[in-house]
Amino acid sequence: MKVTDSRRVLTGSSWRLRVETLTSADGRQMERGAIEHPGAVVLAPLLSNGEVLMIRQHRHPIDQTILELPAGTRGWNEDWQACAQRELREETGHRAQELTRLGEFWPAPGLSSELLVLYLAQALCPDPLPQDEDETIEVVRLPLVDLLAMARDGRIHDAKTIVGIWRAAVHLGLA
Amino acid sequence: MKVTDSRRVLTGSSWRLRVETLTSADGRQMERGAIEHPGAVVLAPLLSNGEVLMIRQHRHPIDQTILELPAGTRGWNEDWQACAQRELREETGHRAQELTRLGEFWPAPGLSSELLVLYLAQALCPDPLPQDEDETIEVVRLPLVDLLAMARDGRIHDAKTIVGIWRAAVHLGLA
Repeated sequence: MKVTDSRRVLTGSSWRLRVETLTSADGRQMERGAIEHPGAVVLAPLLSNGEVLMIRQHRHPIDQTILELPAGTRGWNEDWQACAQRELREETGHRAQELTRLGEFWPAPGLSSELLVLYLAQALCPDPLPQDEDETIEVVRLPLVDLLAMARDGRIHDAKTIVGIWRAAVHLGLA
Repeated sequence: MKVTDSRRVLTGSSWRLRVETLTSADGRQMERGAIEHPGAVVLAPLLSNGEVLMIRQHRHPIDQTILELPAGTRGWNEDWQACAQRELREETGHRAQELTRLGEFWPAPGLSSELLVLYLAQALCPDPLPQDEDETIEVVRLPLVDLLAMARDGRIHDAKTIVGIWRAAVHLGLA
């Protein structure tokens, strides 16, 4: 199969959709789509008492309100650490004096170029920014050890949150 | 914000793109897109010697060849277990005599309605189906204990594979 056509069919505020036409040696054609994505940060904001600042928010594509680590899409040219601080302030109202990068992963590499970069955020202090106007976010404080049990046994259903909680717990010697 | 328009802008072989217009109380409008997705299966095919049938394949959206658990998109009306056996046969050339459902999770709930359903596949026997013509897949056998270490320390970068390996290891008493 060869790519014989490639076109951007939609440009949104944070991502773009590209559709390519593939043509086989005997002339059959098929289309495939892919999201061009600037990447996003995932944050594990840990308080000194062992609680994590989690969020509950309504996710429109699945029409459910779910428990997640704070996260957010990077601007196309935004610095990763600056993005991490901005999303932390918007979603939890805190800034981190310590940010530790704990790796990166792809949430949906068959569909989107999105890369998620995970940060452990510590030494938190209040420093809010306004939330995005299309977001309604509730902050929930839960012990990391409880979240680890929930990620482990299937009570957390968001992939980035399962990975983020596990990696944070491993980094801190809890898993 | 209210949804004041909703339209399907693209229908692909396995998913559809919907774009909605939101209008605020003071008349400002914004658009948001979401993928309508039929869901997919993720498989942890475990041989009796403790090795897992993994795959390496080129992922077009990220333009990289990566190590993953076998997985595949469900037909819109396909039974989940039938989908699991079909994808297992297409991608690894094996059928499972035992399929154990190990939960489900969303890979990208801000972008897509896709739900991933995870199965541990055991008692494997050869029973291949032809691969999808747009896929070139290499099967790799790796010990589950090694994969667990790789998922744990960040050497595996595919979210569904990190979650699937961890959950399989937990189910088998290895984590």
